[in-house]
Amino acid sequence: MADILISEVGPRDGLQSIDRIMPTEAKKRWIAAEAAAGVREIEVGSFVPPSLLPQMADSAEIVAFACTIPGLNVVALVPNAKGAARAIEAGAHAISIPFSMSETHSLKNVRKSHAQMLEEIAVIAGLAKAARVHFAVGLSTAFGCTMEGPVEEDQVVRLAVASAEAGAQEFSLSDTTGYANPAQVKRLVRAVKAGVGAERMTTLHLHNTRGLGLANALAGLEEGITTLDASLGGLGGCPFAPGASGNIVTEDLVFMLEAMGVNTGIDLKALLDVRAIVAEALPGEPLYGFTPDAGLPLGFEGIAA
Amino acid sequence: MADILISEVGPRDGLQSIDRIMPTEAKKRWIAAEAAAGVREIEVGSFVPPSLLPQMADSAEIVAFACTIPGLNVVALVPNAKGAARAIEAGAHAISIPFSMSETHSLKNVRKSHAQMLEEIAVIAGLAKAARVHFAVGLSTAFGCTMEGPVEEDQVVRLAVASAEAGAQEFSLSDTTGYANPAQVKRLVRAVKAGVGAERMTTLHLHNTRGLGLANALAGLEEGITTLDASLGGLGGCPFAPGASGNIVTEDLVFMLEAMGVNTGIDLKALLDVRAIVAEALPGEPLYGFTPDAGLPLGFEGIAA
Repeated sequence: MADILISEVGPRDGLQSIDRIMPTEAKKRWIAAEAAAGVREIEVGSFVPPSLLPQMADSAEIVAFACTIPGLNVVALVPNAKGAARAIEAGAHAISIPFSMSETHSLKNVRKSHAQMLEEIAVIAGLAKAARVHFAVGLSTAFGCTMEGPVEEDQVVRLAVASAEAGAQEFSLSDTTGYANPAQVKRLVRAVKAGVGAERMTTLHLHNTRGLGLANALAGLEEGITTLDASLGGLGGCPFAPGASGNIVTEDLVFMLEAMGVNTGIDLKALLDVRAIVAEALPGEPLYGFTPDAGLPLGFEGIAA
Repeated sequence: MADILISEVGPRDGLQSIDRIMPTEAKKRWIAAEAAAGVREIEVGSFVPPSLLPQMADSAEIVAFACTIPGLNVVALVPNAKGAARAIEAGAHAISIPFSMSETHSLKNVRKSHAQMLEEIAVIAGLAKAARVHFAVGLSTAFGCTMEGPVEEDQVVRLAVASAEAGAQEFSLSDTTGYANPAQVKRLVRAVKAGVGAERMTTLHLHNTRGLGLANALAGLEEGITTLDASLGGLGGCPFAPGASGNIVTEDLVFMLEAMGVNTGIDLKALLDVRAIVAEALPGEPLYGFTPDAGLPLGFEGIAA
């Protein structure tokens, strides 16, 4: 049993940030290999119109494939109720909607005000409940916005509470813009927990834009966060937030946690081998990661030992 | 008054890792500009034989120059008593000797056993005390060694205590090889504090080899560390530890701390401008740093505000 759930978001967040389209069969190899390395949750695709994100056009097929892997929690991102219906129909175990805490960013990104987003969340919650699909809300730009600057923490809590009242079952705090710092992570996790309950405020989605990704992850762990999103090779970020880039690297995160004695359930050596699948499918695409470059310390033993 | 002392090690640790020799006048411009940005301690050179490290041949002139800057604590690295005598003669305010916790690394690096190093430390302590110069010991490879693998924590504590008994006034735990993780940082800081007293166990010298540098810095802060070494642009590392590279980046560290509300006394915008001096003096040399690449968040206000 893992102490911490690593939720791999590369096949969704990573691939939607890249212009090239990864072939469906390569996506399947990637997802299967990561699951085999011990990753227990993967955000495998998003149900956005293919005209907007052709990289995600095969998401229904990918969800169906991923659901055949024993023990894997298959998550799909949905931008709205229509996408949610498609994700549920495809068989996703869980769906997640990004809800931008900056209204400016929300209007720019999905052309919805906060009030309109809360209405959409209520509709999706109804669909998810009827289908017995888990429904999470990602509180994006929670740590600051490249358009608005700082985002009020009270506003984040208020919108999280409103989302919970609308039926959201779980929350992620998302550092979409790479503005977060460890003190802020601790404050905001505590505040949202107080608002919606600790059992619902479980997840951090962190970027490494200013190099603080793992420090922020550590801060979250210390506040009882149980799920951390990360992306193999650091692929992805947010294409709609100018200047923002870089999810935290799954390999570096797993190294940090396993070295600390925090069990991720992931075989780090096997995880490092997954990079070859992605590199082969996306030749020339940069894959990041300090631990992959430096190698494992002499005498390091993850769960593979 | 700063909450945390940032000790810039680039002019020593950074420049000795680069084959090219930075002109003396450029070193002076760098040091002066960093001090003007609010950096209150700089390790400006090392008193190693110029035949071994020609990059450091002008250290006496650099120390003398740095001592003319009001309020700057001028530190010099010394490999042995002979170097200590030269550093003291040059006017350094403080001297520091690296003491490798891995005996294999010590024998390879300075051809001295642990017992021989403790004798050297006693001699240096005598010189420093007579000259009223502050004397610190850097407990290098404290978190693991690329030759030996894991280093016993009891051994680190024992050697720190023996160094204190030999007259060392202050200690730094140094992650020479980039093996450290936050849990280990906390354990070892606590253990060495218990051995030599909290007032002597003040400093961490961290590398970012596996991307954990700032997470380790955060762990140290939480254990009451008051001084953090860092290098502008991440220059440097340890040329004697194969595969090891990369001091933590001063700019990223200052961003993290100031964003957290921890006062460094440093004007981050002015610090970012110092990079141009280094870049001009070392054309083509890579300068690292996430914050310099990404820029400061919208609405971010350091002490400059």
